Amino acid sequence: MTAKIISGTEIRKTILAEIKADVEKMKIKHGKVPGLATILVGKDPGSVSYVTLKVKTALSVGFHEIQDDQPEDIREADLLALIDKYNNDPDIHGILVQLPLPKHIDEKKVINAINPDKDVDAFHPANVGSLMICCDEARFLPCTPAGIQEMIVRSGTPTCGAEVVVVGRSNIVGKPIAMMMAQKSVCANATVTIVHTKTKDLAAHCKHADILIVAAGVPGLVKPEWIKPGATVIDVGVNRVGMNETTGKAILKGDVDFDAAKEIAGKITPVPGGVGPMTIAMLMKNTLRAAQYALGEL
Amino acid sequence: MTAKIISGTEIRKTILAEIKADVEKMKIKHGKVPGLATILVGKDPGSVSYVTLKVKTALSVGFHEIQDDQPEDIREADLLALIDKYNNDPDIHGILVQLPLPKHIDEKKVINAINPDKDVDAFHPANVGSLMICCDEARFLPCTPAGIQEMIVRSGTPTCGAEVVVVGRSNIVGKPIAMMMAQKSVCANATVTIVHTKTKDLAAHCKHADILIVAAGVPGLVKPEWIKPGATVIDVGVNRVGMNETTGKAILKGDVDFDAAKEIAGKITPVPGGVGPMTIAMLMKNTLRAAQYALGEL
Repeated sequence: MTAKIISGTEIRKTILAEIKADVEKMKIKHGKVPGLATILVGKDPGSVSYVTLKVKTALSVGFHEIQDDQPEDIREADLLALIDKYNNDPDIHGILVQLPLPKHIDEKKVINAINPDKDVDAFHPANVGSLMICCDEARFLPCTPAGIQEMIVRSGTPTCGAEVVVVGRSNIVGKPIAMMMAQKSVCANATVTIVHTKTKDLAAHCKHADILIVAAGVPGLVKPEWIKPGATVIDVGVNRVGMNETTGKAILKGDVDFDAAKEIAGKITPVPGGVGPMTIAMLMKNTLRAAQYALGEL
Repeated sequence: MTAKIISGTEIRKTILAEIKADVEKMKIKHGKVPGLATILVGKDPGSVSYVTLKVKTALSVGFHEIQDDQPEDIREADLLALIDKYNNDPDIHGILVQLPLPKHIDEKKVINAINPDKDVDAFHPANVGSLMICCDEARFLPCTPAGIQEMIVRSGTPTCGAEVVVVGRSNIVGKPIAMMMAQKSVCANATVTIVHTKTKDLAAHCKHADILIVAAGVPGLVKPEWIKPGATVIDVGVNRVGMNETTGKAILKGDVDFDAAKEIAGKITPVPGGVGPMTIAMLMKNTLRAAQYALGEL
């Protein structure tokens, strides 16, 4: 049997429509809309296209959006001053600094400079800590893990008591999603195993997973025979494995061998069109929440 | 074969001696010693005896120690003001507020009021987040998990690639030790599974553990047949199961059936005398580190 495809593109549409409706209500009630400042340093093509998409999405849901492009050689002190400006701007509820930053800038210092109440990426240690202490009380959840959890829940996959295996232990995906799924919470309550490069028997662990979340960044790492029949498979990998000569666009491949895996899994996310589109949707949700907090709605 | 007993009492002695030596050096070099303020609200007998032990230990390693006892009915605002006083006291490097607090006081607000640089319990969200982002760069690790990791490492148990199973997901033990053992770090790098009340097959998970860390608070929960022969077993449970009629002292039992388990495990911690004594030792280490940071030594 072929697995049900969990389409991030479709779920994103629903979430963005929900956000847009909430923005309308906020406008009527408070005469205000959520404000997002996106700071891009330099002109890395990947970052430029990603920020462009974020800006476009923010505008599409009715946000007040400031795109603040800065030169590659901006001084660290000037970048910190810029963040401080937005920290003190009452019309800006979310501040996003596109990573990676040029090497002469200390990324950690920059992340720590953002007011945690405006840290819509949820990378500030105080927000990371809140997630670990209690997701339900955290103001923001990091965008990609939050998107993964939304996909699991909205696809009707039960999580309570489920065996979740997370492949990869990055700060952006692996560690936070593992912590989120293990919490005593309605959309979590799973038994969670984190596996990584030092794990001795990756295959054996994957085979036990009712929900397999793969964020390793290794194209085709997870073989079809590692998948438990009927499992929900979330593929976070977005690996460029070549270029389409006709369109000039990158060919993307996930960490899971999708074509074979979809014959075994119960539900599976595609690449592209899976987790990717969810990340920006959750960024919008965080910005909305930041504004709702600022207006005393949450 | 009988397991090697990992004695927390013995390891604590070594750690406290190391700390005492560092305090001596600090005194000579800087004319200063680490300062710890312990705030106890009310007269709960358990809390009183625990704080007394912390104070005694702090004095024994040469710290400047302020024991600040407050009445049960202290107003929240006054407690917050007291914390602020110590936040601004250059002779105090560590602030410990003994938990639990009376119900009219918001514990979260109190924890968040402590300057993270003086938060030697490492309960502030910023310190919890730092642990999750990168233990090696965290200023403080929470005392009980740090003690557990020390016991594992000092007993010569290899962690890299080891299967670690953590039973329990509390904020004080389960979640942080799981995160610490999964990190890409010399004393960690383990494959970690967090199991809890919603886990379907607790026994099967425990049986796979090379290192089994039990922090469930259920006396005798882990049966001997759940233990992999040769495994290292860390029992965090301290359950009062009765009282010795002759001495009037509480009879303590761990979460593991110790007598039977020690015939199967390779190494095991006793209760009492295991993890318990380590917690205060790690509190002293955190206070030392706080002072070392303040003096620019770290």
